[in-house]
Amino acid sequence: MSFDYKTRAGQEFDRTAFESLLKQKKFFWQSFEPYGGTKGLFDYGPPLETLEAEVVNIWRDHFIRHEKMMSLKCSMLTPYEVLKASGHVDKFADFMCKDPKTGEILRTDHLIKDVIEARLKSDKEARGEKIEEAEEDPKKKKKQSKAAKTAVKLDDAVRQDYEHLLATLDDCSGEDMGAIIKKHDIRNPTTNNEVEPPVAVNLMFQTQIGATGKEPAFLRPETAQGQFLSFQKLLEYSDGQLPFASAAIGHSFRNELSPRSGLLRVREFLMAEIEHFVDPESGKKHSKFASVREIKLPLLSRHVQTGGGSTPTEISIGEAVDTKLVDNETLGYFLVRIMQFMQRIGIDMEKLRFRQHMQNEMAHYAADCWDCELLSSYGWVECVGCADRSAYDLSVHMKRTGVSLQVREALPEPRRFEEFEATLDKKTAGKALKKDLGKVANALEQLTQDVREKLCIDIEKGPVEVAVPEMEAGKVELTKDLVSFAKVQRTETMREYIPNVIEPSFGIGRILYSLMEHVYWTREQDQARAVMSFNSRVAPIKVLIVPLQKDKRFDPLVQEIGDRLDEESLSFKVDQSGVSIGRRYSRNDDAGIPFGITVDYESLEGKGFTLRERDSTKQVRGSMDEIVNAILSMVKGKTQWTDVKLPLFESKDE
Amino acid sequence: MSFDYKTRAGQEFDRTAFESLLKQKKFFWQSFEPYGGTKGLFDYGPPLETLEAEVVNIWRDHFIRHEKMMSLKCSMLTPYEVLKASGHVDKFADFMCKDPKTGEILRTDHLIKDVIEARLKSDKEARGEKIEEAEEDPKKKKKQSKAAKTAVKLDDAVRQDYEHLLATLDDCSGEDMGAIIKKHDIRNPTTNNEVEPPVAVNLMFQTQIGATGKEPAFLRPETAQGQFLSFQKLLEYSDGQLPFASAAIGHSFRNELSPRSGLLRVREFLMAEIEHFVDPESGKKHSKFASVREIKLPLLSRHVQTGGGSTPTEISIGEAVDTKLVDNETLGYFLVRIMQFMQRIGIDMEKLRFRQHMQNEMAHYAADCWDCELLSSYGWVECVGCADRSAYDLSVHMKRTGVSLQVREALPEPRRFEEFEATLDKKTAGKALKKDLGKVANALEQLTQDVREKLCIDIEKGPVEVAVPEMEAGKVELTKDLVSFAKVQRTETMREYIPNVIEPSFGIGRILYSLMEHVYWTREQDQARAVMSFNSRVAPIKVLIVPLQKDKRFDPLVQEIGDRLDEESLSFKVDQSGVSIGRRYSRNDDAGIPFGITVDYESLEGKGFTLRERDSTKQVRGSMDEIVNAILSMVKGKTQWTDVKLPLFESKDE
Repeated sequence: MSFDYKTRAGQEFDRTAFESLLKQKKFFWQSFEPYGGTKGLFDYGPPLETLEAEVVNIWRDHFIRHEKMMSLKCSMLTPYEVLKASGHVDKFADFMCKDPKTGEILRTDHLIKDVIEARLKSDKEARGEKIEEAEEDPKKKKKQSKAAKTAVKLDDAVRQDYEHLLATLDDCSGEDMGAIIKKHDIRNPTTNNEVEPPVAVNLMFQTQIGATGKEPAFLRPETAQGQFLSFQKLLEYSDGQLPFASAAIGHSFRNELSPRSGLLRVREFLMAEIEHFVDPESGKKHSKFASVREIKLPLLSRHVQTGGGSTPTEISIGEAVDTKLVDNETLGYFLVRIMQFMQRIGIDMEKLRFRQHMQNEMAHYAADCWDCELLSSYGWVECVGCADRSAYDLSVHMKRTGVSLQVREALPEPRRFEEFEATLDKKTAGKALKKDLGKVANALEQLTQDVREKLCIDIEKGPVEVAVPEMEAGKVELTKDLVSFAKVQRTETMREYIPNVIEPSFGIGRILYSLMEHVYWTREQDQARAVMSFNSRVAPIKVLIVPLQKDKRFDPLVQEIGDRLDEESLSFKVDQSGVSIGRRYSRNDDAGIPFGITVDYESLEGKGFTLRERDSTKQVRGSMDEIVNAILSMVKGKTQWTDVKLPLFESKDE
Repeated sequence: MSFDYKTRAGQEFDRTAFESLLKQKKFFWQSFEPYGGTKGLFDYGPPLETLEAEVVNIWRDHFIRHEKMMSLKCSMLTPYEVLKASGHVDKFADFMCKDPKTGEILRTDHLIKDVIEARLKSDKEARGEKIEEAEEDPKKKKKQSKAAKTAVKLDDAVRQDYEHLLATLDDCSGEDMGAIIKKHDIRNPTTNNEVEPPVAVNLMFQTQIGATGKEPAFLRPETAQGQFLSFQKLLEYSDGQLPFASAAIGHSFRNELSPRSGLLRVREFLMAEIEHFVDPESGKKHSKFASVREIKLPLLSRHVQTGGGSTPTEISIGEAVDTKLVDNETLGYFLVRIMQFMQRIGIDMEKLRFRQHMQNEMAHYAADCWDCELLSSYGWVECVGCADRSAYDLSVHMKRTGVSLQVREALPEPRRFEEFEATLDKKTAGKALKKDLGKVANALEQLTQDVREKLCIDIEKGPVEVAVPEMEAGKVELTKDLVSFAKVQRTETMREYIPNVIEPSFGIGRILYSLMEHVYWTREQDQARAVMSFNSRVAPIKVLIVPLQKDKRFDPLVQEIGDRLDEESLSFKVDQSGVSIGRRYSRNDDAGIPFGITVDYESLEGKGFTLRERDSTKQVRGSMDEIVNAILSMVKGKTQWTDVKLPLFESKDE
């Protein structure tokens, strides 16, 4: 890591120890391990699968239920035609370079970045400059001085060139990258072979529907397209009223060329996407905006980034929208709701920021775009994209299929206006133009009002020329007896328009990974005692039951507590192995169980049980009812540990 | 329908009206409609998507939480090798016939069934026999008598032949079906063209991982394989102790050749699968079996089916296991838990049965298999399969990969035994056998104890012959100085075995469709007033708020009730349109909202609200607290409507 990343307790984050804990506790692993494993595919074990389910349920509650969104489940298999229209067939691609001797496929941007970074590092070593990560570690320092002997110093100009190149790599086209590879002699670092020029490779998984070979299809790269194609159903469901939002939680696929970074960049991933449909003429106001106006967000504007800054400003969403930093109320409202969702699931608010897209990062049609980024040991990672997709998607599908994806709305008052009309005389024009009549009629319909107005005057003076692209000659000469131009009165009672779409799109896997890093820390007194401080709402298991010792007399009470927790649908685990109670708590703290109930000898005398809170290790004492009710209320998020008013209990065991 | 199917209220089930309701209320529709739609793929709209989420959450609670199963999420993309080993590449196929003139692909069994059924129907018409479905409908009768004129009467022998053919079609191989097509001149019914012979077509969707073309993959046809390949992780998670169960809720895919029957046979579907791993020598006992012994299930045994019967017997699971009707306690326990799950989500218990597989329906390795079938207007449909997969899957993957998928267990006491050992004399044998030494050593290791014992005696008399398949000669002659056979003492302290697997596998989409049919009925007084009687736990929306009339004075109270329901995470809908309150209730009854809260003029005076129950249309009156608490308790499944002790309220509006 070339930046400072600390645990919630302010400790240096040790990714090796963290990953080893995740592995040991079976949070996740590479899929199909007995077959050697498949890169970019992961299985979730019991703790992470349950965590995902809890987080998804909170998402459902926070967005779908609370905001009255229309939930949808659309198909993952998607016909070719749909993704051709949406632009994914042509543009959803990464550039790759092939090593012609080994057949190895390298992602072009990764290749350039790796090689240039290695050269810069070598240059630093040659110049005897400190390399950040080696700063504190004497072992690494030794390694560094050794490396310095084989290091290559660069010209100052080259060094500057390289640094500029890295900073602008994201904006490069395939051609640009090809030129960089040639110019700087970039080769496959593992073989030192020259590589072939970059080729765009589509990132969708292709397949066939049916057995005829006539239905090529892809696995969807996003859930959004299915929602757009359901637009007319949604509009009917909302009785024709805008705005409304649909929401889909489902898997999407991306055939990464060389997956890296564990759970952060995978080939199969769960998304939760909202499509909020608005009237573009409404100013994208939001009816609940007033209720969130004063809430402050850490916003990193395009302006600050352009100036080289990376520190977000805390600013109320009201001010951000008033000053047009955030484009509109709806976008602003969603930014607040996204932050509140992150808070609810236990994301560290110090490791969250909203970053505005640079102009060249956005799609050409987008009005504004903010990413909710979470800081992990991999750096700041986009976990939610919140973009204004304008009317782009609905328009392209409507154009391709001819099916209306518009809203039809009665105007509050009929709109009266005048316009110039061109009318062909059927008899004379039919005779004169014969088979070209239709083509000429089409061409006249395409004329703008300005042109019609001019022709209306000109034709009085003599024949006029009209462009007819469909005819061989490309134009036609028309006289007064064939066509007339006149000003007419019109009345419109309906308005038709294609809605704009604001889309908050959540990558659930990335959020889960960041969350796991954010809740991880180790107890001061003992480095080995790791804790996963999941809040009680998302914690995979809610309660640990521990009998004080291995003693059959405790069994009926353990059973009774279990039955009682079952009644309340609270998940629990019993640890009645022979090891000390302190050790049993410790080894379950790192699984993230927030509450422990101890059954001891006083419990046998009807004197209640102790309830222990994981993070503070504080214990209180109460009856079964008192304890279960306290837990239930905390799991529902209605109360906190500090609200529990039961007498403190001093344990001798921790 | 050729059988009697009634709604829960005992009415004839009108599938046309039912489907039109589902369409109007946006339960589901064919995916990608603007592009003409894709067969076998469906989108779920808000009511069905939410219903699915509620049912899945109950499943999680009922199985994963309550039974302490290890939940898993495995990848959908699955490498070729995995599905080759599991047998799916070779055997997961349907037969199809091609119409060579049109290129149309027909599923062979459907083709034969359709043509033969049409001929039998035509025969019945020619004979003037009643056709069941036309019985009551005068319009159909007319059509029938018209049809009779073009009807073709069959020979009695042919008719019998056809009936036998239909009854045994499921057991036919591809070759058998090819013969039937030839013998009975079966043609494509829409073109009357002869069809090509049946060809097996694999039903998996194929794709490629990465860009090298070296990683062919499929979309999984079941979630099970991912669970089997995670076996060692699960075993570690359970500290090496069996039995345990894993569970996965996820999508699987089946590239149906010609999808039919709406949601019942689709190309992309949600499954919930449990893999319960047991020691095959444990007798497959279940620790909780005693708690369910007395529970009765409707069991349709293999024996009854063989005798032509189709009526299940109500029998306690204890008796069923004792009499070996159900193979073992674990299988029996799961059958009960499946039934209880169906009860919890609101399946009509009169439309549920467990059908035992016939011997030829089961995989060769399966010990016993029961399907939980639900009755819908499509007939009895398998919704849960509950099979004993024995050690089959773990064995094939272990064989293919060489990775242990076994349990290693310390024996309670060391096992001492004697066995015959063959020992080659390294010096003399090395000289005599040279490069064949290893091959001979392998061959000796493969010898059974009986053979070794015999050789031990024979070799004292002279040279003995041992088969060595790896050698060119296929055998070798060995003398006393090269090899010795002797009886030795052995002690074993560990036992290694591959567990058996009992697998309850749920098709969530089929369950949801059956549930929708089971809860549908119409009010006696008015055919058009359809009701969807979802129980309050699964109902997509829990509460309807209706102000008595359009009157701004009601708004603050509507808002207050909404806020209160929000606090309790109860979903609600407000219907404040101008139509009568009766009509507003009615049009929400068919969306399945179980409870209605009316805000009336007495509410304005602080005299509470009415609470209406959808099925009975009964109303009671209470304060906001009383009403919200009553609803909350019913939604949690803790109380019923009959437990609500608030004063009755006589409405004049329904």
